[in-house]
This record gives sequence, structure tokens and C-alpha cells, in this order.
Amino acid sequence: MSYKELKREVFEANMELQRRNLVIYTFGNVSQIDRDKGVVAIKPSGVAYEDMKPEDIVVVDLENTVVEGSMRPSSDTKTHTHLYRAFDSIGGVTHTHSTYATAWAQARQSIPCLGTTHADYVHGDITCTRDLTDDQVNGDYEEETGVQITDAYAERDPNAAPMVIVAGHAPFTWGKDAAQSVYHAALLEEIARMAYLTRTLDPHAAVLKQAVMDKHYLRKHGKNAYYGQS
Amino acid sequence: MSYKELKREVFEANMELQRRNLVIYTFGNVSQIDRDKGVVAIKPSGVAYEDMKPEDIVVVDLENTVVEGSMRPSSDTKTHTHLYRAFDSIGGVTHTHSTYATAWAQARQSIPCLGTTHADYVHGDITCTRDLTDDQVNGDYEEETGVQITDAYAERDPNAAPMVIVAGHAPFTWGKDAAQSVYHAALLEEIARMAYLTRTLDPHAAVLKQAVMDKHYLRKHGKNAYYGQS
Amino acid sequence: MSYKELKREVFEANMELQRRNLVIYTFGNVSQIDRDKGVVAIKPSGVAYEDMKPEDIVVVDLENTVVEGSMRPSSDTKTHTHLYRAFDSIGGVTHTHSTYATAWAQARQSIPCLGTTHADYVHGDITCTRDLTDDQVNGDYEEETGVQITDAYAERDPNAAPMVIVAGHAPFTWGKDAAQSVYHAALLEEIARMAYLTRTLDPHAAVLKQAVMDKHYLRKHGKNAYYGQS
Amino acid sequence: MSYKELKREVFEANMELQRRNLVIYTFGNVSQIDRDKGVVAIKPSGVAYEDMKPEDIVVVDLENTVVEGSMRPSSDTKTHTHLYRAFDSIGGVTHTHSTYATAWAQARQSIPCLGTTHADYVHGDITCTRDLTDDQVNGDYEEETGVQITDAYAERDPNAAPMVIVAGHAPFTWGKDAAQSVYHAALLEEIARMAYLTRTLDPHAAVLKQAVMDKHYLRKHGKNAYYGQS
Repeated sequence: MSYKELKREVFEANMELQRRNLVIYTFGNVSQIDRDKGVVAIKPSGVAYEDMKPEDIVVVDLENTVVEGSMRPSSDTKTHTHLYRAFDSIGGVTHTHSTYATAWAQARQSIPCLGTTHADYVHGDITCTRDLTDDQVNGDYEEETGVQITDAYAERDPNAAPMVIVAGHAPFTWGKDAAQSVYHAALLEEIARMAYLTRTLDPHAAVLKQAVMDKHYLRKHGKNAYYGQS
Repeated sequence: MSYKELKREVFEANMELQRRNLVIYTFGNVSQIDRDKGVVAIKPSGVAYEDMKPEDIVVVDLENTVVEGSMRPSSDTKTHTHLYRAFDSIGGVTHTHSTYATAWAQARQSIPCLGTTHADYVHGDITCTRDLTDDQVNGDYEEETGVQITDAYAERDPNAAPMVIVAGHAPFTWGKDAAQSVYHAALLEEIARMAYLTRTLDPHAAVLKQAVMDKHYLRKHGKNAYYGQS
Repeated sequence: MSYKELKREVFEANMELQRRNLVIYTFGNVSQIDRDKGVVAIKPSGVAYEDMKPEDIVVVDLENTVVEGSMRPSSDTKTHTHLYRAFDSIGGVTHTHSTYATAWAQARQSIPCLGTTHADYVHGDITCTRDLTDDQVNGDYEEETGVQITDAYAERDPNAAPMVIVAGHAPFTWGKDAAQSVYHAALLEEIARMAYLTRTLDPHAAVLKQAVMDKHYLRKHGKNAYYGQS
Repeated sequence: MSYKELKREVFEANMELQRRNLVIYTFGNVSQIDRDKGVVAIKPSGVAYEDMKPEDIVVVDLENTVVEGSMRPSSDTKTHTHLYRAFDSIGGVTHTHSTYATAWAQARQSIPCLGTTHADYVHGDITCTRDLTDDQVNGDYEEETGVQITDAYAERDPNAAPMVIVAGHAPFTWGKDAAQSVYHAALLEEIARMAYLTRTLDPHAAVLKQAVMDKHYLRKHGKNAYYGQS
């Protein structure tokens, strides 16, 4: 009962994945953390969006033990909780196999900053992680997927690049809550599509000059930001 | 009368082809077998989806003789019955000319396993068959199309790769019933699209490492599967 | 009054262009001939589909003189009437700037027969015309566009290839009536898209072998056709 | 109160951006000028289309001072007012990050005139501006973006090419009013998409011959235009 609002928000964020055409069938999952209570609400594993109800959302603690819910949580739950433990400023995580972002992941290439659409949301490349080793794959696979992501942020602020692509797999994004992590997933897909079109039109298209990267990111995100209404 | 439920399921599965944007006009056909009765229900030939009714579905035996129905069965019926005779574990077959899967078929290339989206559903390549010989084309063409498919599975479990592309033609997929064969047709189209984008971004993009292929396939399909609710 | 049914059919066929996503704004036009009366009904020039009414359809004779209607006929009318005069078996003509077919026209390449989807509807290449000469452009331009098309069919049956692309411009298609010419426009767009994907995946992808081209075309169109219900 | 009709037109034009799939979330903005009153109505900054109301539209003067409205105007306002000051024949301006036009901007390439779809609306290339210098970026950035655009039109009639792409950024389009500037944004996106497909199919595809460029532009726009109803 006490997790009702958290579960409703996670349910709504998951449904948004489908409305934004970021998933088909049971692909993808979104979670949100309640840091005071130390719990994460997440999509149940393998349930189709059209069949899912708010009460199906599963609540786990940060060690992945189910706290509330009768269904099995997403098979990617350990990756989510790893991210919440490592990045203490984030409140929501989204995983999709959205088409263009996944193509970059399959090509094992970071997405270069080719224009201001990218620079508005991410400061620098959208990193493609390194491949997991065979030991990582055969060990605690979903936990190790999280490790590959956080290793890529050893010297980077997760808020300056709230999206990453896992080599050979697909994207993970995050934000202040579940809804914002989905928003970042949709932006990533559009940025990935523009970058694909640019590089297939000209394989040598250069990255944006640093001054423009800084300008666009900071007019939206710096302390002197002047985009939007607040 | 006795085939009413079978025909309704086949009708619904055919209509799903259109909802999933896998066909236009009269393209495509789906069938399902009732192995106890030894009959296959299939779409009638050349009928548009918007005009089709459940009673238009044609029932044939495994030698392609019409058992019930006033319309002519799909011109691809012999390929379907060939597959049911050769693969005794399958219950449904779908044929489409979905755009990206057909492009791979026209390029006469098997779709390599470039990422986990593919690995989740197919263990290894999605095979492109060999070309039919002129004798096969001028002989019993639709039966021989089935032969080219089953020859490609001489040493492969059809359940580990429930989808194939016929060189110069288009895909066939199968599953435990008509609905699951359509599900596999939709997954194939998405996998084919991701693989197209990956290879046009980088023509030398490498296949996924074997450990990840095994991990993803087995977490969904092996006896130790832990994806989903059962 | 006497052209009411003809105008209604042409109106419906024009509206289908929009439903099939073959046009935006005022792009495209469809016509149909009544050979007994020697008149052609065609879309008015520059009218948006959402504003068009059946009574706006213009009726002209084969020398392009308006016979009925208060609006100016499509600026492409002379191309349509040229085709009706040259190809006496056709009853409808469609012109669009559909995206993929237009890309092939802009690349000035005929669309090769790469698969059975193409072979089902067109026997051989979908021809790209030669460029118009400067004299043709500066002379009776729309009539000369028709000449370029019919020149390409000097030794070819228009019914065996009811679609053509005009170099640097866009496609024209035809059929037994307006509705079938739109059907061919939609098929052309899908065939052009599949061919684009195939050739960008493999620039050297080979054309279909002749035996399969013949088989697929003839199972739908020859006197021994066995596709469909009649 | 006195700007009610102006604001309503600008609101409608902004909403059309979303209906035409030219924007997602808060991307893009449209404005319209009332030259008699010396004011420009424009979208508020960072407001989602689904939440926007006509009364949210902000009215500024040509020096970017807010004249009416409680919200902050678009962060791109200075680019709009720069264009109105420089091009005295235009009445509306649209900015989007539409996908294909943005890909050309990111590739820093002008869009060549490859076919009549382009020639019908733009006489010659769709210019890609030069990069802004670091001083321009770090100075009055949005004003300088306008400068880069008008510099590209030093010897060109803005009405003969009512669309431009800003290097590394995205397109701006204009017209007689807000609605027509959106119309040009939609046409640009389709022209950019066709040009992308043409050049990825054949990187050496040649531009249209001059006679056809002139013919198509002038049959729609010259004093002897014969397209449309007026």
C-alpha cells in the first residue's frame, strides 16, 4: 500500500515507452527509486504493455530482494539497482532497445556530438561501453552490465550525459525520476537517428566545435541557463 | 463447422500482420495446423485484409487438398504444408514481404547476430537460403521453396531459429501456433532493421561474442531461463 | 451531370493517395478516362486533398480542353492525355512524388528487379526515362514528359510494366482504371524502398534470375495465372 | 487584447509543427510579424505543445523587448527578429530540428537541387551557412545565428529560397506568414529526405539541369505561373 504512488509513476513511465515508439512487445523497462525508503519500483519481467496494470509493478530493495509484488521483476533489475547505488543523484532509469540507439550499440561506436540537438542534452559523446569479458558474461551478467556503465563514468558526471549505450546490447538512460529517464530515452533515439543519417551521408562529418557544445549545453543546464520558464 | 475455432485463430493472426505494418494490400499469409485432425487453416489467395472474414479462411490437408472453404487457398500453401511435415514441433507459419527482412533476402545475405535483440530470439544467424535452381523454379515452385528452407535446417533445430529468409524472395517464420509465428515475423523485421542500420553505419561491424549469444538465448529459452513470469 | 460517376471515382482515387502516404499537401494527381466519351477526369491544379470535393474534379477532352468544371486542371494534364492516346489499353493514370521512387528518379537509375515483390507486378526493370533535352523543357514541357515515357515503351508492353520513373522528376503509374493506377503507385513506392535498402546494404546485389522473374510474373498475370480468386 | 488574432495564428502555426511530425517535446518555434505595429508574436521558451495555449504566445518588439505576455519568449527570438529586420518581404519564421534537414546541417552540406520536387519551391541550392566563429558563439549567439543566415543571402532573394540550414544546428524557414513558414519547413524536410536517399544511393548523383530548375520554379512562381487556381 505504501508504495502506491511510486508504482503508479513507474507504471505511467513504462506506458510512455510504448506511446513514444521506443519499444515493441515486452521490450524495455523503467524504474524509479524512493531513496528515503531505500526501494526501487520496476516493470515486471516479460509482461506486455497492453496487459500491464499499476499493481503489477514490483518493488525491490537495493540488493534486489522483492519487497512488494507478486510478479518477478525485470531481468535487468540488477543493472538498475547498480546504477542507483553508483549514481546518487539519479531518481529514475530506463532501458530500451530503441532502433537507432541500438544500431550504434551494435556498431560498438560512441555517438559523436555532431550538432546542437545533441549538445542541448549531453555534454560530449554518448559513450558506448567496452565489451563485457567472458567472465563478466558468465558471472553475474546483469550486475556486470551495470559495472561496465559505471566504469565509463569513472571521470564523468552522470548528469552531464544521462544516457549511455552498452556495446552489442542497447541503451540505458537516467534522470531525476522515471519520467525524465524516459524523456532522455526518447531524445537519445532522435539524436542517434540524426547521427546515423549524418554519418551515412558523410562518414567523415566532423564533431561540433567546442564553443558551440559548451554554449548549447550551458544555455539549458548551467547556472546561467536562459532556456525555458524557470 | 468443426474447424470454426481454428479458422478464427488463423483469421486473427492474419489481421495482426496488418496491425503490425508487416503487409500491404494482399501481401502475406498465416496458417495454423491441427495435428490431431491433420489439417491446416490458411489465408485465401489474393484477398485484402480489410475484406477478409473468418469464414473465408480455407482448410486443407497436409497434401494441400481443400477440406473446407469455398475460396482458393494462398498460392504459398505448399510451402506451409512442407514446413509442417518437416518440422513436427511447429504449430503456425507466417509469410510476409516485410520491408527490411525482404531487403536482406534480396541482398542474399544471412542476417548476422550483431546484438542481444537478435540473440534473445535466435541462436546464431538468421539464414538466407540458397537460390532455387531453374529446375526447382520451373517444377513444383512453392513446394521447392519449402525444400530450400528445410535443407537449410538439416543440422539445426527449427525452434532455435524460428525464422528464415528465402534468397531473392522474403521471410518465413514459425512458432507454436499462428499467433507466435506472427510474433516472430514482427521480431524478425525489427532485428533485420537494426542489422541494416548497423551494417550501413559500419560494414565491418562484428558479430556478438559467443558468450553473450549463449547468455541471452538461454536466459529466455534454456531450462534455466529466468526471463518472464513462468 | 453526365460525368458524375467518373468524377466520383477520380475523387476517391485521389483521396487514396493521401491515405497511402504517397503525397503531402497538393502533390500528385490521378485521372481516369471514359474512352466512349473521349474524356478524362483529373484533379484540379494546386488544391489540397483536405479541401477537395468530388465536384472540383475537372473533365477535359484528349486535346486538353476543359469540358466540365470551373477549376483549372492539374498542370500535368498533358502528360496524362499523352499516355491515354499512346497506350490504348489503360484507363487510369497516377502521378506522385512518393519518396523512394522519387529518389531513384533523382539518381537517374532504373529500378532493377531484385526480388519477387518486384517480379509479382513488373516484368523486368522499372525504367528511368532519359533526361528531357533543353528544347523539350522549353517547349511543350508536360507533353514532352509524356513523350519521354512513351519513347521508353517503344518496344515494351505498358501492361507488363505499369510504372515508370521520369529522370530528375518522379513516377507515373497506370492501370485499368484510376484506382488500379493508385494501387500501382503504392506498390512502386514499396518496391523502390526495398530496392534502395538492398542496394545500400550491398551495392552489387544481383538481379533476380530470369526463371524466377518469369515464374512470379506469370503466376499472377499469365493466362495460366493461379494467384487470387478468379 | 489587441494582439489576440496574431497570437492565435502563431499558436495554430506552432501546433501544426507537431501535427506534421517536425518536432518532438519542446523542439522548434514559429513566429509572425505585424509590420504595422512593429511586433512579433512567438512561442514561449521550453513549453510543450500539448500544454501550450494561445494566450501563452509572447509578443515582442523588433528589439526583443516583451510587449505582451507573462512567459519568457523562445530562446531563439533574436534570430527571428534579425530575419524580420533583414528581409522586409517576409511575415513568418519557423525553426525546427526536423530530422533529415538537421542531418544535412550536421554534415555541413548545402542541399543540392536533385529533382523537380526541390525545384518547385527553391531556385538553386538550399544553402548551409558557414560555421559561426568562436567570437560569434561567445557573443550574442542567437543574434549572430541570424547574421550567418542573412550573410548567406547577401546576393540572393530570400523569396527564391525560403529555407536555409545553419551549419551544425538545424533549419530556419520563412514565408508570407507563420502558416506559410511552417509549410516551407515541411517541404524542406521532405526535400532533405529525398536528397539524402538519392545521395546515399549514388554519392555522385548530378544536380538537375538548369533548364528544368528554371521551368519548375517559374511555372509555380514567375509572372507567367500556371500552377494552381489563381
